[in-house]
Amino acid sequence: MTCIFCEIVRGEREAYIIYEDEEVMVFLDRYPLTRGHSLVVPRRHYEYIYDVPDDLLARLIVTAREVARAQVKGLGASGVRIVQNNGSDAGQIIFHVHFHVIPFYGEARRHRRVLSREEGEVVSAALREALKG
Amino acid sequence: MTCIFCEIVRGEREAYIIYEDEEVMVFLDRYPLTRGHSLVVPRRHYEYIYDVPDDLLARLIVTAREVARAQVKGLGASGVRIVQNNGSDAGQIIFHVHFHVIPFYGEARRHRRVLSREEGEVVSAALREALKG
Repeated sequence: MTCIFCEIVRGEREAYIIYEDEEVMVFLDRYPLTRGHSLVVPRRHYEYIYDVPDDLLARLIVTAREVARAQVKGLGASGVRIVQNNGSDAGQIIFHVHFHVIPFYGEARRHRRVLSREEGEVVSAALREALKG
Repeated sequence: MTCIFCEIVRGEREAYIIYEDEEVMVFLDRYPLTRGHSLVVPRRHYEYIYDVPDDLLARLIVTAREVARAQVKGLGASGVRIVQNNGSDAGQIIFHVHFHVIPFYGEARRHRRVLSREEGEVVSAALREALKG
């Protein structure tokens, strides 16, 4: 069984990376709900939040908060939703635990679509820059 | 300006409380999306996740994970969604930072409704019990 997020973590699959350190990675969702829709994942594979140890869970949510701030500062978001799904009945599609960080912009459209190369490059650069402080 | 969640924290407004300590409270949402829909809030008032300090944010997400586990164990949930909204454009209604912890049960209905007294008592008791370990 291959895990798409493990492949991104190992550099075997392309993604627009926003941030990474020894434990955590952030990259753009390939099927964004809105411009800047990002995913925060642990490098290590856990299926569900139930199994994630306290320290790592703290790192993930603090990183998600930083990404939310960057979406406000770097992309002009007027609101941010953080979503974490466990189990297909709750909407989980990739079974490697992750937090969606989804910016909103007033009346922006909210249906998912494929991320274009142009949007991926522009948006990931703006978020990387905003994350620097 | 009164804050409904601050009123619950101070004991001035009724709620079906699942858990509380010096920093964090958990109670049932008054307009649950599903049976067991719970809210994790800090006692101290912050409007948005942007403003919550790291240590408290860690406490909130670890508590949300415990509630998710309790929904699986105590209510038989097959999936759990955690949602945290910031700003009205992202769906925030009460401007006191909170995490929704929403259990799913296969094909259960997902529209919000008013929590009945019977459901409030039965469900909050089941979650309190499951949280004990």
